[in-house]
Amino acid sequence: MIRFKNGITLDADGSVNTQNREVWVEGDKIAFVGIPSDEQLKSTIFEKEYDLEGNLLMPSFKNAHTHSAMTFLRSYADDMSLQDWLFKQVFPMEAKLTGEDVYWFTKLAILEYLTSGITACFDMYFELDDYFKACTESGFRTVMCGAISGDKSAVKRLEENYNRFNGKHPLVSYWLGFHAEYTADYELMEGVAQLAEKYKAPVSVHNSETAKEVAECVEKYGKTPTELFDSLGIYNYGGAGFHCVHFSSNDMEIFKRHGVWAVTCPGSNSKLASGIAPICDMAEKGVNLAIGTDGPASNNCLDMFREMFLMTALQKIKRGDAAACPADVVLKAAVKGSALAMGLDNCTDLSVGSQADLIVIDLSKPNMQPLNNIAKNLVYSGSKQNVKLTMCAGKVLYKDGVFHVGEDVNRIYARSNEQLEALKARN
Amino acid sequence: MIRFKNGITLDADGSVNTQNREVWVEGDKIAFVGIPSDEQLKSTIFEKEYDLEGNLLMPSFKNAHTHSAMTFLRSYADDMSLQDWLFKQVFPMEAKLTGEDVYWFTKLAILEYLTSGITACFDMYFELDDYFKACTESGFRTVMCGAISGDKSAVKRLEENYNRFNGKHPLVSYWLGFHAEYTADYELMEGVAQLAEKYKAPVSVHNSETAKEVAECVEKYGKTPTELFDSLGIYNYGGAGFHCVHFSSNDMEIFKRHGVWAVTCPGSNSKLASGIAPICDMAEKGVNLAIGTDGPASNNCLDMFREMFLMTALQKIKRGDAAACPADVVLKAAVKGSALAMGLDNCTDLSVGSQADLIVIDLSKPNMQPLNNIAKNLVYSGSKQNVKLTMCAGKVLYKDGVFHVGEDVNRIYARSNEQLEALKARN
Repeated sequence: MIRFKNGITLDADGSVNTQNREVWVEGDKIAFVGIPSDEQLKSTIFEKEYDLEGNLLMPSFKNAHTHSAMTFLRSYADDMSLQDWLFKQVFPMEAKLTGEDVYWFTKLAILEYLTSGITACFDMYFELDDYFKACTESGFRTVMCGAISGDKSAVKRLEENYNRFNGKHPLVSYWLGFHAEYTADYELMEGVAQLAEKYKAPVSVHNSETAKEVAECVEKYGKTPTELFDSLGIYNYGGAGFHCVHFSSNDMEIFKRHGVWAVTCPGSNSKLASGIAPICDMAEKGVNLAIGTDGPASNNCLDMFREMFLMTALQKIKRGDAAACPADVVLKAAVKGSALAMGLDNCTDLSVGSQADLIVIDLSKPNMQPLNNIAKNLVYSGSKQNVKLTMCAGKVLYKDGVFHVGEDVNRIYARSNEQLEALKARN
Repeated sequence: MIRFKNGITLDADGSVNTQNREVWVEGDKIAFVGIPSDEQLKSTIFEKEYDLEGNLLMPSFKNAHTHSAMTFLRSYADDMSLQDWLFKQVFPMEAKLTGEDVYWFTKLAILEYLTSGITACFDMYFELDDYFKACTESGFRTVMCGAISGDKSAVKRLEENYNRFNGKHPLVSYWLGFHAEYTADYELMEGVAQLAEKYKAPVSVHNSETAKEVAECVEKYGKTPTELFDSLGIYNYGGAGFHCVHFSSNDMEIFKRHGVWAVTCPGSNSKLASGIAPICDMAEKGVNLAIGTDGPASNNCLDMFREMFLMTALQKIKRGDAAACPADVVLKAAVKGSALAMGLDNCTDLSVGSQADLIVIDLSKPNMQPLNNIAKNLVYSGSKQNVKLTMCAGKVLYKDGVFHVGEDVNRIYARSNEQLEALKARN
């Protein structure tokens, strides 16, 4: 049993408890939450005790949209238009990627997630065996999202992956998905809808990231991407839309009707000049909200604190209202919404039986003082600097700046840089 | 002599030097930059050597607009309109502030600046003796900015402070300034202009932060705030405008003509829904650019990394162009522009004789890898977590998470919280 004591706790609903509740972890699960009796303390053997020294213990952040392995493109092609970035830099480099590249670049990304208190990612990429290996070796939770594109021949591979990766490892699951409307033909999307029906499974996909994407879809099909997906039955069992920047009222109605999650990526959407998603409108209509960092090529960092501040700051700008998108809405999206968006419904709460996906926030840093309101401090002034400990499935993967991911960190840096140089040189 | 060795250096122009240049510091100044000869090494006695272990040494960030002591309002009144925030929360609380409050709340702010690699602030507030004491005791550089408001009777105090604080301490200077057009009457502004003429000195002031401020000024005077200040001769010797969000083409021309610095505060401007400053337009017109965090009541954190990302991200959104406001423009504003905006022209470069205001950036954190482009990494993925060491005027004030500010950090936290509770209870 692992014991966290002498701390403050914050629950998934954002409520703070200062009554010195303890949280105990057995294996990968939370075994106790509360103020233990003397009897309980006497009868329990703790293999490890963490004295929180008044700091905050809370459920970890989850990242509902990313392409982890794209760390290799960080600071490689910034300050250029989205089209040039994607077609002249990203796609040509990606065409040369090997499985070994993906393995090391993913390991690098996982390190950064841990420094930001993120314990799970909804990840869309390729070279899946290598991605799987990087995550499981690191002890990091992931939901892989289908990323097929092109014609219907890809659908078979999607189904194979769905059956191959689900159930393979307790930290890994796989969800149906495809890259985007603009990289898929109609038959591919029909095929995905058939799989959704066959497995009664949700489908997740990039959706309405740019005005151009929506305009071209409307021109081609007479429907927005969301309307098109709806007409095909793709969202019949829910799922997630990544980005959702250029979203109509009807798009929101469709999301609401099917319980589809809108995953906002404000860092990426601002850096690539895609726009500001209508998060407040969505919230008012009751659309489910989650947050993603997007990949490090477009963001460029993997930092839930930055995403949280941007989520609310951009809404305040968009609405011209400093009261827009308050901190509690943001915090809920980052902790609980993002987990539920990828089907992780058992790692969001400080409750007995939940997966022990927990973080400790250092309140003894100047940006967390004074303690007027801890939840607002997290959203408005929190930073990676405040992440003292990150635990995934009961294992401490990061503590006081030191990683415990089964691999020397300097080797991950060195190998990432080596793979990058080899990739650049490759024809 | 203090020696920094085995590192990479970044100069004020953003250029990176990987040739293992060393930087030596004697007293408060840089004494050597380059690759030393064996002879030089033999003949020099180092009282302290810092092995950079391949990390980055660069000139520190400067913060060109803030109200440091407002840490007490962090997370106290968020998610409300600017008018309610200012008139119902900020002003009533400020009216009860004592000098002792300002002393402790400033010390708290300085800690956070140091964690973000900031070594100097252009600070506008009151209880100046206590503010002065907090800065000088901490070893922190500051330029105090006149903050008078109301009628012309305040001008006398401004002049007294100007003469009292300039020359009082090597880390402190004082610049003429007043709060804003909307909190000053015409005679006060005339009086400030007379002082500017008398001392041939720049004047700095909040300028065009909100659309309301500009509209009401135009209604009252038939001029924008910038045009009004120009007509009065307030900017005849330069100065700075804080915020500059709602800025006309003519406003920019006036700034250009007088070499006035536009200090952008993107964190505050988004959180308070003030808008997005036309930074790209200003840059194209050749207006001088600097960055400020604004006070922690409106931001809520004091983090130059967040401001740098927001500065470029908001421009990309505003222009609909992912190439807008590239990283080098941002980095230059944060390192050099912000210093020059407050008249600090001798702490911006890695050159012999410059003030030793330096920071060490930890490149062995995952957000700085791979090393495609260090300058872009700083702007797009840098965080407080990367600040390994902060030196002001040759003194290490922060290193590896530990502060050296002449006061126990936990005492600063405790006293800040105590002063806050007393302030809340005070009538």
